[in-house]
Amino acid sequence: MGKVLVLYDSHTGNTKRMAEHVAEGAQAVPGTEVRTLSIGEATGTDLVWCDGAAVGSPTHMGQPSWQIKKWFDECGVWGQTDGRLGVAFSSEGGHAGGAMLTCMSLLQILMNFGFLVMGVTDYAWYCYTLHYGATTVREPRQPGDIAACRELGKRLALAVRQGAIDVREPGENGPNLHLEKPKAV
Amino acid sequence: MGKVLVLYDSHTGNTKRMAEHVAEGAQAVPGTEVRTLSIGEATGTDLVWCDGAAVGSPTHMGQPSWQIKKWFDECGVWGQTDGRLGVAFSSEGGHAGGAMLTCMSLLQILMNFGFLVMGVTDYAWYCYTLHYGATTVREPRQPGDIAACRELGKRLALAVRQGAIDVREPGENGPNLHLEKPKAV
Amino acid sequence: MGKVLVLYDSHTGNTKRMAEHVAEGAQAVPGTEVRTLSIGEATGTDLVWCDGAAVGSPTHMGQPSWQIKKWFDECGVWGQTDGRLGVAFSSEGGHAGGAMLTCMSLLQILMNFGFLVMGVTDYAWYCYTLHYGATTVREPRQPGDIAACRELGKRLALAVRQGAIDVREPGENGPNLHLEKPKAV
Amino acid sequence: MGKVLVLYDSHTGNTKRMAEHVAEGAQAVPGTEVRTLSIGEATGTDLVWCDGAAVGSPTHMGQPSWQIKKWFDECGVWGQTDGRLGVAFSSEGGHAGGAMLTCMSLLQILMNFGFLVMGVTDYAWYCYTLHYGATTVREPRQPGDIAACRELGKRLALAVRQGAIDVREPGENGPNLHLEKPKAV
Repeated sequence: MGKVLVLYDSHTGNTKRMAEHVAEGAQAVPGTEVRTLSIGEATGTDLVWCDGAAVGSPTHMGQPSWQIKKWFDECGVWGQTDGRLGVAFSSEGGHAGGAMLTCMSLLQILMNFGFLVMGVTDYAWYCYTLHYGATTVREPRQPGDIAACRELGKRLALAVRQGAIDVREPGENGPNLHLEKPKAV
Repeated sequence: MGKVLVLYDSHTGNTKRMAEHVAEGAQAVPGTEVRTLSIGEATGTDLVWCDGAAVGSPTHMGQPSWQIKKWFDECGVWGQTDGRLGVAFSSEGGHAGGAMLTCMSLLQILMNFGFLVMGVTDYAWYCYTLHYGATTVREPRQPGDIAACRELGKRLALAVRQGAIDVREPGENGPNLHLEKPKAV
Repeated sequence: MGKVLVLYDSHTGNTKRMAEHVAEGAQAVPGTEVRTLSIGEATGTDLVWCDGAAVGSPTHMGQPSWQIKKWFDECGVWGQTDGRLGVAFSSEGGHAGGAMLTCMSLLQILMNFGFLVMGVTDYAWYCYTLHYGATTVREPRQPGDIAACRELGKRLALAVRQGAIDVREPGENGPNLHLEKPKAV
Repeated sequence: MGKVLVLYDSHTGNTKRMAEHVAEGAQAVPGTEVRTLSIGEATGTDLVWCDGAAVGSPTHMGQPSWQIKKWFDECGVWGQTDGRLGVAFSSEGGHAGGAMLTCMSLLQILMNFGFLVMGVTDYAWYCYTLHYGATTVREPRQPGDIAACRELGKRLALAVRQGAIDVREPGENGPNLHLEKPKAV
């Protein structure tokens, strides 16, 4: 009974198309509850709600769009999302255009929020992998592109069947920030 | 009852010292079974055995040692470790010396093996974080260095209390490789 | 007679302090012309003007601020900056807090703009390196922090004494985009 | 009159094929001297000799082969290669298989050696970029794959027409390592 958030930014529609295929893959796992939301629709509450998130962005200048970075900087739920699971996807303008670097930057943001991040060891199609996330050149058009997006959503949904991971000891409510400077001894 | 492997390469003893502190942190979680092994002692069987692995390497030329990369290239258990959890640690020669890049390279290797990788949102000490792994400048000497290593081991051990994550459907034995080229339609 | 742009975003003043020290380092190289500008002051014209840029951002959620990413996405000079030289710097909230990952993301953005990016092999101080950029924990306060910023600016200024690098053949005006789909043969 | 080293590791022949195309691109720039050497043939002297290096590795487990990392760890010329220019290339087993991450790891190694690293803003073919290096799925077979390798070599050769970059002040012989701990004041 996992809860999956597919969260994306899209400017030309390519990443939105990817998000829809990721959501299809998640929905194929019985009992999964899926929310597919653009960054204009989602709030921090959706990130707290989910057991796992698939986060997608177009590759702009070799990195995620500033809009999706802004969303995470301002969502206001840092410290409340430990133990969620996360995956990434991105559409790039050409082969080797940076989409994998965009995926890694998205995963690093998710790690900062306490997510456990994953890729998929399965190939989605002949010569189509998604070891660090799913990427497409422009629109997901090839059968392998679409299969990779679906596989990404499916594996995330399978991984959260038991919910998120508890990384806290009994009684802990969130990260210890050690804000006080220890006295010199 | 999680099983934690602390796997490391060490040339000067600094990363070994880190590994010992990571293991201390894991052992502090009741019921955790811990194996602390250098790459000379561990085999692929240990990677399959564990629910979670903390992998450490010295930072050599801004990346993991070739020895630890060789270990993973040759361990022979790719496809058998899906759903394990992973964290990384590294000792560098000076501030900003590349240890965080080493951690990310180690985590990318683990992702390739199907691990879910994580950092820690908690600060380990005043101004000491480990959002992407634990790093020290040379020997772990400062209280914050040692606390970061322990916190890393502790959070990994907490995360695997329920064991590894199942990313497979009933009946699947491992990654589907799609080795056959589909017929053109 | 190199032209150096120190371009930064700063929210608490820490990255601004770093930028000032980077600029001091650049100015110490005779004949260097230096512009130190926040992203609120700089335009794409400044990026085209420079032979080399030192770009700094606070580390927010393990990555550059969205504001500096927005600046690059919208500066409008992609294709006009090939062959410039680039370095990066970042202030993080705690040790291992992601500043080196922020530097790498900034350098990847610069690579996308055709910059040649560099670190520094010199240590700036005992145990202070800047192989991939200069990083500080919060304010640059330690002598090593300040020395690292200055060394970064100095090496960039030395590297651009002969100006930017020409990566174009005679007659080329900018990147060839191959926008037309080739006819199937 | 630039000197270009094409240095590669290859296990199946795919990366060797890429290296040959990279070398063709470099040779197309009049006056360029090119050495194409596998890691079994090259020594540190070749790295010191060159003005620019194109370094290629197969993608193994999402990272460079351990053999090429070993070569750099043991080549013995750290501190003698400041100011060279560098690019990267890699062959991966499937789309999104990690080749771009391998390129970034190779570039980080080169940065550690004092290289200025670059990608190419030009597209090599319709929908084929090489902003961070050239990548192919298995053998370079598509026209775009081959064009990307050639473009990489060509741009590197163009960039080193004036030789390597001087990042040193008069009288400096190599990196200052600040090995002595400063006295407390």
